[in-house]
Amino acid sequence: MVSIIEGGLTSVPGFRATGVEAGIKHGGLDLLLLSSDKGPIPAAALFTSNLVKGSPLQITKEHLQNGKLGAVVANSGCANAYTGQQGIQDARETAELVAELLDINPGDVGVASTGLIGTRLPMNQIREGIKKAVKQLSNSWEDGTKAAKAIMTTDTCPKEIAIELELEDGTRTTIGGATKGAGMIHPDLHATMLAFIVTDASMTPAGLRSALQRSADNSFNMVSIDRDTSTNDMALAMANGLAKNDRITKKHPSKKFQKGLDFVTTELARMIARDGEGATHLLEVHVEGAESRKDARIAARAVVGSNLVKAAVFGEDPNWGRIVAALGYSGASFDPSKLSISFKSEEGESLILFRGKTTSEENLIRAEEVMGEEKIEIHIDLGAGQESSTAWGCDLSKEYVEINSKYIT
Amino acid sequence: MVSIIEGGLTSVPGFRATGVEAGIKHGGLDLLLLSSDKGPIPAAALFTSNLVKGSPLQITKEHLQNGKLGAVVANSGCANAYTGQQGIQDARETAELVAELLDINPGDVGVASTGLIGTRLPMNQIREGIKKAVKQLSNSWEDGTKAAKAIMTTDTCPKEIAIELELEDGTRTTIGGATKGAGMIHPDLHATMLAFIVTDASMTPAGLRSALQRSADNSFNMVSIDRDTSTNDMALAMANGLAKNDRITKKHPSKKFQKGLDFVTTELARMIARDGEGATHLLEVHVEGAESRKDARIAARAVVGSNLVKAAVFGEDPNWGRIVAALGYSGASFDPSKLSISFKSEEGESLILFRGKTTSEENLIRAEEVMGEEKIEIHIDLGAGQESSTAWGCDLSKEYVEINSKYIT
Repeated sequence: MVSIIEGGLTSVPGFRATGVEAGIKHGGLDLLLLSSDKGPIPAAALFTSNLVKGSPLQITKEHLQNGKLGAVVANSGCANAYTGQQGIQDARETAELVAELLDINPGDVGVASTGLIGTRLPMNQIREGIKKAVKQLSNSWEDGTKAAKAIMTTDTCPKEIAIELELEDGTRTTIGGATKGAGMIHPDLHATMLAFIVTDASMTPAGLRSALQRSADNSFNMVSIDRDTSTNDMALAMANGLAKNDRITKKHPSKKFQKGLDFVTTELARMIARDGEGATHLLEVHVEGAESRKDARIAARAVVGSNLVKAAVFGEDPNWGRIVAALGYSGASFDPSKLSISFKSEEGESLILFRGKTTSEENLIRAEEVMGEEKIEIHIDLGAGQESSTAWGCDLSKEYVEINSKYIT
Repeated sequence: MVSIIEGGLTSVPGFRATGVEAGIKHGGLDLLLLSSDKGPIPAAALFTSNLVKGSPLQITKEHLQNGKLGAVVANSGCANAYTGQQGIQDARETAELVAELLDINPGDVGVASTGLIGTRLPMNQIREGIKKAVKQLSNSWEDGTKAAKAIMTTDTCPKEIAIELELEDGTRTTIGGATKGAGMIHPDLHATMLAFIVTDASMTPAGLRSALQRSADNSFNMVSIDRDTSTNDMALAMANGLAKNDRITKKHPSKKFQKGLDFVTTELARMIARDGEGATHLLEVHVEGAESRKDARIAARAVVGSNLVKAAVFGEDPNWGRIVAALGYSGASFDPSKLSISFKSEEGESLILFRGKTTSEENLIRAEEVMGEEKIEIHIDLGAGQESSTAWGCDLSKEYVEINSKYIT
């Protein structure tokens, strides 16, 4: 049983956090600091698959060689990507500044950034921001929320969650997380997803990494806002072991912990999708009846990522032909004559296509009503097997174009 | 030397064509008929890669088994896709109707459709339309243009071209073509590309097919309007041999003919891109310095297909960071520190990035001016090799969302 508790990162014992206004972006909190009371603890991170990787990712990867981190610093307002050797140096210096003030090794500090590609980190602001943040660090909910706010870009709200659950050995553990969505720092900058997750469970670095990878595959990796993959995506997790449970390792994973972590990352992924740029609808695509898990995943992602499907959702239009076409080019294997599609929301459910045949004009009109709600689900049965998957996204609105067409110059 | 001549399909000796209003869509020409005076001649076609294929594609494929066609009928207003056995029967009957009136075999008629997925062809309208079209067939430029108009959907103008060129053996040959763009029949229907190309060159079916495949790979297959692949895409070519050149075969291709065909398909592809739904800019992405041809292609396609790049082009914003990011996730292999990017238009050229380094603030401001033109080129040098490729697309405008969010119900 997973129960949601108040707060986010700071709801987990042994972690302090905060967010400050360092002056990196024009107004608002823009520097997050997260610190482990115990000092360096098992940590793991996943990075963007983009060939061009931001400088902070390279530093964080390097610092994770020993599987441990004691603190994380992240800024919005500048991605510190495509900034060459200078960028690496700036990310390294950022880690050093945090390390010095927290009295840990620079190698124990993770660094993340989101913002404009190709411009240098404003190091004076970073320096002052870090000083301020170190003084302000606390385990209050308010400071947890400040941390979540400090990584926001075009996000319209902070995104955080915390849960409690009981592990197989009876110990209770807590997981807290904060994320930012696929939005632009300014109307001109590149979309980036950042996620930070902390827990008091006792885990090895490899156990944590493996659990994080598993959860991310079914959550963060199933979110599509605009099919553009950032240079700076990072999901980072830390585990301090204060729960004193039987250690979770790669060889001896905990199903219950995995379930809790899945819950946290799925909720964060849903928050990202719901708050996609210009989004007016949260879109959830459930694919079942797939021949393989991979087929289920690529089918769900193709539908949630299709500009035509997204524009139809914006128009609250049950245009099922576009869904059929997206499934057709997804690469998933299925027999079109066995396909079923329904639309679902708080308003109810309407089956449009049943085993390759349209149901009724009435159901199509009903589907329109169903699509009038904020959260819309598309349920697809490929009729080809037993595997399933879910993907999250949002509609394609005129607001999206507006946000992303503004000048950088 | 390729010279452009007046007209399109009917500019090629031995072909007649026309377009009529059959009443399949709400007003306007909606049925194309193309006929070979010589009767069945070598023909070849390429079809959508979508798993879900429209019924006409299945019939045309079947009829091309012997490598010959004598006529082609195509309609806009209804895709006849996802219509089951009934759809196959309707497409077959369409071919039979044309065959009867032209006194050829049903197996010598190609069929194509574009429009709403999942609804039946209105066979009464098809029947009457075919009768009208057979009577009206002519080799006048006007009827050629009518044919091009009859396949239009949300296209804002007909798309046709004709050229003359001299082959290696000194004979002169003609190539004519018509296409429709990636638009929607109604604001509610699925995007489809259709292209018809005729020539009086003497070719075997395999020679024609191979030349068409080659040309399409560098033209139609490099156009991206919205990354959604239709169920009904078709590019079809016919060659009647009246030019009496040395027969072009798969084993003995003609470089000159290939160059001419490349020219035709590239021009048609450019017309499609320029007239993409809601497009305000034609975007041409040139990638050079790639390690392999495949890398050049996937890099060019990733940039031209990126929603973020497209939105930036709509905003006339030289947001080169988004280009770097798109190249990074394209899968092409390159060293980011060797990358060069410039923007070019009738207004001039501005180099933004040279071997991994930004040039100057002045160039960025200049690039903004350069992007003020209707046709914008992005030139990318990956600095990784000798291969190159070009892709075509258009910007992502609010109009695109408007067009694609309207109701089907």
